[in-house]
Amino acid sequence: MALGEFGLIERFFTRPSKRRDVLLGVGDDAALLEMPPGRALVAATDTLVEGRHFLAGAPGSSVGHQALAVNLSDLAAMGAEPAWALLSLSLPEVREDWLGDFARGFYALAGASGVDLVGGDTVRGPLVVTVEVLGFVEPAAALRRSGARPGDLLYVSGSPGEAAAGLEALRRGASMGDDDPLVRRYLFATPRLELGRALRGRASAAVDVSDGLLGDLAKLCAASGVGARLDLDALPVSERLAAARGREDSEHLVLSGGDDYELLFTLPALEAARLETELGATCAVTRIGEIVQGGSVRCERDGLAVEVAGRGYDHFA
Amino acid sequence: MALGEFGLIERFFTRPSKRRDVLLGVGDDAALLEMPPGRALVAATDTLVEGRHFLAGAPGSSVGHQALAVNLSDLAAMGAEPAWALLSLSLPEVREDWLGDFARGFYALAGASGVDLVGGDTVRGPLVVTVEVLGFVEPAAALRRSGARPGDLLYVSGSPGEAAAGLEALRRGASMGDDDPLVRRYLFATPRLELGRALRGRASAAVDVSDGLLGDLAKLCAASGVGARLDLDALPVSERLAAARGREDSEHLVLSGGDDYELLFTLPALEAARLETELGATCAVTRIGEIVQGGSVRCERDGLAVEVAGRGYDHFA
Repeated sequence: MALGEFGLIERFFTRPSKRRDVLLGVGDDAALLEMPPGRALVAATDTLVEGRHFLAGAPGSSVGHQALAVNLSDLAAMGAEPAWALLSLSLPEVREDWLGDFARGFYALAGASGVDLVGGDTVRGPLVVTVEVLGFVEPAAALRRSGARPGDLLYVSGSPGEAAAGLEALRRGASMGDDDPLVRRYLFATPRLELGRALRGRASAAVDVSDGLLGDLAKLCAASGVGARLDLDALPVSERLAAARGREDSEHLVLSGGDDYELLFTLPALEAARLETELGATCAVTRIGEIVQGGSVRCERDGLAVEVAGRGYDHFA
Repeated sequence: MALGEFGLIERFFTRPSKRRDVLLGVGDDAALLEMPPGRALVAATDTLVEGRHFLAGAPGSSVGHQALAVNLSDLAAMGAEPAWALLSLSLPEVREDWLGDFARGFYALAGASGVDLVGGDTVRGPLVVTVEVLGFVEPAAALRRSGARPGDLLYVSGSPGEAAAGLEALRRGASMGDDDPLVRRYLFATPRLELGRALRGRASAAVDVSDGLLGDLAKLCAASGVGARLDLDALPVSERLAAARGREDSEHLVLSGGDDYELLFTLPALEAARLETELGATCAVTRIGEIVQGGSVRCERDGLAVEVAGRGYDHFA
């Protein structure tokens, strides 16, 4: 192998800093970063394992995108502004074309999100990618899972379920290079950073839909000590999702699919109508239910309770 | 498997915060942390892969310790004070006894170092552990690799090589539970946080010895644009290392072994004698050479150049 660990980092993962708050980036023992005054630091990390979080043979550009996107989505769910990322890459071998694609996917999203890669680690091992994203938010305005109150209205952004449909299409043999917009949505979904920032000081609670809408709603309810009523007929099912999968399958994908990086959030009822209009300027938001007392999530159709199969994703369940 | 992902996190990795600057720890989309004013954020990450960075069958307590220690050592090399950690754990299966040991090793070192675990990710996959450590330092006093100047004197802390000798003993069949102090040193080496802080505003450059003294010295020299003269007869070889391995082997281990978390640093010559005494109150420090012009590291014995085999560790070389 011609390229050693340090050559690899230098070739693929060392670019000039774009941010003036990076006092010291890749290349020393640790990064040195300047925090803006009056903000709290926000930190998240997520790990992607080949064959589990991304398909074996997935294009490097998609893996690089996803590894960063899943973390940016966590920051979006806090209303935070992302600033810096660290990347730990465990690689079975150095495939320079794949690494070049990975770096391209990673840096494209990083650039679009205002994020600098400031450090990391590259080791030989099974293909496992861990990214940590750091950012900041005014502490009092940070979105949390725990603020939902009975009477608050429940919303979801965008078109959840599309990425899950794209993943299923790939599993059934669709090509990674396919133009199918559902496949593209799975490979390159965009985290809702702008919406997250718009929700600061407005939403009473928020969570990103990473393990499926139903599962993440249950977590929001548990953290807030409340229950929820979910109106199945109100779920946003995009036209292209309905066309590809039919209404019943689509509903299942909306409720249980991950990888879309949509946000699930609650608004106080009195302000909901006004906020809904304001937020709509950022991206589509759909009212899908309301917060109630108790601790359980009740799915309804025409006001009647409906049993729904499929909860969130749990790696060890 | 009885314990799901979230039960696992709750059982092993959720403990009450000890730090008042943790506004939101494990359990939301991201951690929310309060930075002290006037300090820069310091961030490092390192990944350990089973069979490569730790032996298959290594006790969980040692893996938990090492995963945190290798990152704390990076912060020590910056003169930083560690504050928070994130943990990403890819596990092939839930072995509760091993996880309990891992958590015990991790939290013991975290507690001793004033570090709170504030977030992370747990996924199913090959056994790979990534830790990120965050801390802070006065930006002007941060230690860097790049400040060494010709004439500066070169020092190393403690007794490098012992951990490498312990690792070799394990590879030759010594028991993980052995009382052999070299084996203990490998399994539970302590990062030099106190020394790192004492070096702030004093050392002209510093790096931690993670890939071997010679390799890390070459990095310090490259970052500073200088060369070095290394006096082989001055290398600290502990009595127990010399007794176990003889002088020649010991020297090789001191020059090429990692995993001790010692610091390599440079002091301005005029202040070196005074600083040496002051630093000696923290831990043993040994003068092993000096910084010179040029770009190469010259190993000497009795003033004559000596060829030395074995450079630093490179995962992909």
